[in-house]
Amino acid sequence: MGKAHGMVTAPVNKEAATMSGIPFSGHTEYIARLCGTPDSRMMLSNAMLNVIHVTTHVSLRNAIEAPTGRILRTIEVGNEAMRLLGCEHPRIAMCGINPHAGEHGLFGIEDAERIIPAIEAARATGVLVDGPHAPDTVFMRAIRGEYDMVVAMYHDQGHIAMKLIDFEHTVNVTLGIPIIRTSVDHGTAFDIAGKNKASPQNMIAALRMGVALASRKLAGCQTELGQKD
Amino acid sequence: MGKAHGMVTAPVNKEAATMSGIPFSGHTEYIARLCGTPDSRMMLSNAMLNVIHVTTHVSLRNAIEAPTGRILRTIEVGNEAMRLLGCEHPRIAMCGINPHAGEHGLFGIEDAERIIPAIEAARATGVLVDGPHAPDTVFMRAIRGEYDMVVAMYHDQGHIAMKLIDFEHTVNVTLGIPIIRTSVDHGTAFDIAGKNKASPQNMIAALRMGVALASRKLAGCQTELGQKD
Repeated sequence: MGKAHGMVTAPVNKEAATMSGIPFSGHTEYIARLCGTPDSRMMLSNAMLNVIHVTTHVSLRNAIEAPTGRILRTIEVGNEAMRLLGCEHPRIAMCGINPHAGEHGLFGIEDAERIIPAIEAARATGVLVDGPHAPDTVFMRAIRGEYDMVVAMYHDQGHIAMKLIDFEHTVNVTLGIPIIRTSVDHGTAFDIAGKNKASPQNMIAALRMGVALASRKLAGCQTELGQKD
Repeated sequence: MGKAHGMVTAPVNKEAATMSGIPFSGHTEYIARLCGTPDSRMMLSNAMLNVIHVTTHVSLRNAIEAPTGRILRTIEVGNEAMRLLGCEHPRIAMCGINPHAGEHGLFGIEDAERIIPAIEAARATGVLVDGPHAPDTVFMRAIRGEYDMVVAMYHDQGHIAMKLIDFEHTVNVTLGIPIIRTSVDHGTAFDIAGKNKASPQNMIAALRMGVALASRKLAGCQTELGQKD
């Protein structure tokens, strides 16, 4: 314990890990379990935007079932992380889950029944969050300057956006665990292994982000990365 | 009948239409019903990519339930549309629905059970489609040149990508109906009505696309836009 100020990881192959007989849904989930804090969150971060996810490595069917408490906790963890990153009062946009955030019930009830109560509970504690926003325009609004962070309801909602915004420099940050951990956001790319074609840019970005976060923590910022007090 | 070669539409407000008492899930669905072809598809198109959607204005929960036949029909309609647009042998990428396209069953079964059979059936008729691909990287691969068209499983999968790729010039094309119809891809923006702030760029792009499609059809291209023979 205490031998390193942070951890930066390379990709692993989920299928290969699972074939070993150990249940494995992702590197992040594995590290969170080792830390004794299984309720972690994945944030994707680049120079233009930070996106935290309510759910990641579960089926889309399960992601739709995310309860209000989990959505609220994600907003809180995201808010804390943005403060550690130096954003004192982050403006947070909450994504809807259905097309047009449900268009007032026309296309699904989850936006009204699960997401709105989470937004209201977070606002009641002073978090500057609003929504649920139409998922297809909220990322563009955020990178134009309206928001500092977007809360995505499911893996691809956040990942499609962040990889199109800046694939090479988008870094994966694990929140809700007691250590600093960043990671590349690409896969193992076995198809180009040994061909001297892989770009180191994403690993460089992950290392830079890890150093930045660890430095801020060492500099005396009291807030753990989304850890409950 | 026959008084115009195509139709270009401005946005409507779905909620306002619904409040009139007439069930209304979208402009596209309404026009398709008037044409007597309720099984239409929405394509988003810009200079970099074309994306056709298996489902659009339904809840995400319903989108996950899309059956193999609907997925197959979408691939076929997309293939026909690309040929009308002058792409003789379009290379089509089929999106998965779950994270990492289900990662071989780890994150949901729909990719294997519903999408793969549709891809196989389309390939058996000579369509150059492959997948299901991880939704978070397929759009980037397509705009880098690997594919001419992406088939998205649900509204935001395609819309998040296309609006980030080129918001101002992305046009909505209705496929599977017997007329040429394009539309802007933005909403009513009541908040800036009368303020002289709205950009005409998207309407200009929709008009251009309508003219291009109508011209090709008039020039003798026999293929209706995705209409069954």
